[in-house]
Amino acid sequence: MSKLETVLDTIDRNQPAALQRLSELIAIPSVSTDPAYAAECRRAADWLARELTSLGFEASVRPTAGHPAVVGHAEASARDVPHVLFYGHYDVQPPDPIELWDGDPFVARIVDAPNGKRIVARGAADDKGQLMTFVEACRAFRDNGGLPCHVTVLFEGEEETGSPSLPGFLAEHGKDVAADIMLVCDTGMWDRATPAITTLLRGLLLEEVIVQGASRDLHSGLFGGAAVNPIHVLARIIADIHDANGRITIPDFYEGVEELPPDIADQWRALNFDEVKFLSDVGLSTPAGEKDRSVLEQILSRPTGDVNGVTGGYTGKGSKTVLPAQASAKFSFRLVGNQDPERISASFREFVRARLPADCRAQFLSHGASGAIALPFGSEALRRARRALQAEWGKEPVLIGSGGSIPIVGIFKRDLKMDALMIGFGLEDDRIHSPNEKYELTSFHKGARSWARILAALAA
Amino acid sequence: MSKLETVLDTIDRNQPAALQRLSELIAIPSVSTDPAYAAECRRAADWLARELTSLGFEASVRPTAGHPAVVGHAEASARDVPHVLFYGHYDVQPPDPIELWDGDPFVARIVDAPNGKRIVARGAADDKGQLMTFVEACRAFRDNGGLPCHVTVLFEGEEETGSPSLPGFLAEHGKDVAADIMLVCDTGMWDRATPAITTLLRGLLLEEVIVQGASRDLHSGLFGGAAVNPIHVLARIIADIHDANGRITIPDFYEGVEELPPDIADQWRALNFDEVKFLSDVGLSTPAGEKDRSVLEQILSRPTGDVNGVTGGYTGKGSKTVLPAQASAKFSFRLVGNQDPERISASFREFVRARLPADCRAQFLSHGASGAIALPFGSEALRRARRALQAEWGKEPVLIGSGGSIPIVGIFKRDLKMDALMIGFGLEDDRIHSPNEKYELTSFHKGARSWARILAALAA
Repeated sequence: MSKLETVLDTIDRNQPAALQRLSELIAIPSVSTDPAYAAECRRAADWLARELTSLGFEASVRPTAGHPAVVGHAEASARDVPHVLFYGHYDVQPPDPIELWDGDPFVARIVDAPNGKRIVARGAADDKGQLMTFVEACRAFRDNGGLPCHVTVLFEGEEETGSPSLPGFLAEHGKDVAADIMLVCDTGMWDRATPAITTLLRGLLLEEVIVQGASRDLHSGLFGGAAVNPIHVLARIIADIHDANGRITIPDFYEGVEELPPDIADQWRALNFDEVKFLSDVGLSTPAGEKDRSVLEQILSRPTGDVNGVTGGYTGKGSKTVLPAQASAKFSFRLVGNQDPERISASFREFVRARLPADCRAQFLSHGASGAIALPFGSEALRRARRALQAEWGKEPVLIGSGGSIPIVGIFKRDLKMDALMIGFGLEDDRIHSPNEKYELTSFHKGARSWARILAALAA
Repeated sequence: MSKLETVLDTIDRNQPAALQRLSELIAIPSVSTDPAYAAECRRAADWLARELTSLGFEASVRPTAGHPAVVGHAEASARDVPHVLFYGHYDVQPPDPIELWDGDPFVARIVDAPNGKRIVARGAADDKGQLMTFVEACRAFRDNGGLPCHVTVLFEGEEETGSPSLPGFLAEHGKDVAADIMLVCDTGMWDRATPAITTLLRGLLLEEVIVQGASRDLHSGLFGGAAVNPIHVLARIIADIHDANGRITIPDFYEGVEELPPDIADQWRALNFDEVKFLSDVGLSTPAGEKDRSVLEQILSRPTGDVNGVTGGYTGKGSKTVLPAQASAKFSFRLVGNQDPERISASFREFVRARLPADCRAQFLSHGASGAIALPFGSEALRRARRALQAEWGKEPVLIGSGGSIPIVGIFKRDLKMDALMIGFGLEDDRIHSPNEKYELTSFHKGARSWARILAALAA
């Protein structure tokens, strides 16, 4: 047996004990958003630090402005090998509504299901089960001559509340967690049989526009027609943002947007993504947006513009014949490739101003601007990770984009210039954040095997 | 002296006593909206019934579902003369904020001002001072041989709360107040020197539209682009309602809209209405709306369409990347001439439905539909009233439209088929509903003289 085969064999034999360890971690109700559970968060951090120490890591619980982080270091058995940072989080969402759970959310239950056994508990998938896949891979290497890469581990305790203390922590301890590449296990598989690597994270530009007309609300019977109506002005601006083909009309908006590489485009097409099901699950039947783009492209790799909120005038029950002094809307733009959020913000504001009639002013509020993050398709680490996942799952992993954002990856990219390999083994129906969250034993087991293969591949 | 001259002379001599009577009525705080003042409303009704009785009216306080009404009848000295119904209201707005008054709101004060003396108190103009002009005219006729017309008087006590009990009262007692024509003294002069008759009351169509997309709110990062955004759909509908020239684009909307008769158009042009001041008072400088129409036309005699309120998605502070399941807007249309509110409602809804993309539905709520009411320009009563006002003020009265609505007139037109002559002597700066409400002594005095002339003219 090669060393890797021995390691994989160890992982297989360790499964019952690994499940026992995950159950111990799950039993600590480390709900980060509720101050009543602060001691439990600390207890989860202590548990992880002890676990890492027992695996030969130099590990400690580190205070932050909020819940503590856990940092651990372990040297590889060889010297000239890559240094990886593994990121995970030990905090979980509150279990509410408790009455919808089939059992105690903090007692891991093994449940038989048509697709195999699953572990049901809060945090089973998000992120305790996922992070333990990496810990179990490290354990198997320790039992078989040592780690193939230098490994730093960072477990934070505030991911579910938006990682508020992390930027401060990195500003102070960034050197402690700097590495060649970051491994993040907080994403999912493409489907039950197909692994995935998330390589594209869209950026986000958040702009609020307040259109002001008269100096006060007016009576529409006395001023209607003669006085400008800011709701009409705002509606025209919103209507103008997209053309009839769903393309965004803001000048230079698409600058920096590149087409998908042909091999990725081919891969995505081959997925036969079920657009009908995706839409019908939320009561829809017809793709909106860019007419010449598939749903998958639109939600993963194309820039978008949406109004997330609009308000103006009287919005209570019944009617009121008011001609409001102002109306406002909140816009969000998802950005890809090299789209420059600052430049698009400026172009958007110019676009709005150009549509203001006499007597209207616009006030702009910025609620955030971040560019897209992409792991280059030509990255050597990506190439090796793809090969490793292919070996484990017998299928080429799908390279996908994430429609939402994973702020932690942006923070590391910005502050430590580190790329991230985002690989996870969650499934779409894991019900993270909901009652009866589950993680399939296959995800847990083959997840650990996948990390063993990836670590070996990165070091090879 | 002719009989009319004697009557006018009596009015002149009665002025001090008339002011005393108005002060008595003002001293009764008949605030209709506040249940604590219910007994005061009753007291004001009693006071008016006694007053009418003392003038020879057969008068009584009539219970309604809310505050009581006062109904009085008096026969003319001649037989074949018209029968008029005079409408006024004895209830007043609350005096709040009390601290902004220069004195007790319910103690009438005579104040010297550059334009002459004025009476300052809650209700001085709206509507106690105005209705007493008619009562004083009747008194002067009584003292000089009797009324020239049969007169019915209706004073209600709920005008300031929207006349909720009036339709029920009319259903039961309509015959008691039916007459050839209605006289309403709740409007104003064109300016200090120029009387006005309100002959056009615009109608009002109130429609709410709720556009529904997906079956639930979606994450814009996961569904943006692919899923329809009801805010965008609604914005396009709102934007489409007006063309670039400010005209409403709903099919057949302008059917039934007639141009102003040339003489009225000439009269309005001659008014030299100060558009700049009208707009600059509310922080504006440029007329919006129909490009080929004057501000005066737009606010008095043209139909309009306005969105009075819009809401959808997240409207709190900051941002939320939600793609909302629905968005809604409240539309109001002011109608003129023979525009049919039912037909326009149907056409509007069709207009909205035609703009719904796949996967969007619209729900419609009706908040009211009433057509415009116009006193025909060729009306004989109007011709006589114009002549009477011209004689009193030395200036041809302006025939104007009211931008707002006077529901009572609509109710009488609908239920009793009665036209209304709306003539009042209030001035724009009377501060009705505000602290230090006033009525100028000139309005009070010449108002009574005007009614005397009008009654005489109607009977001639």
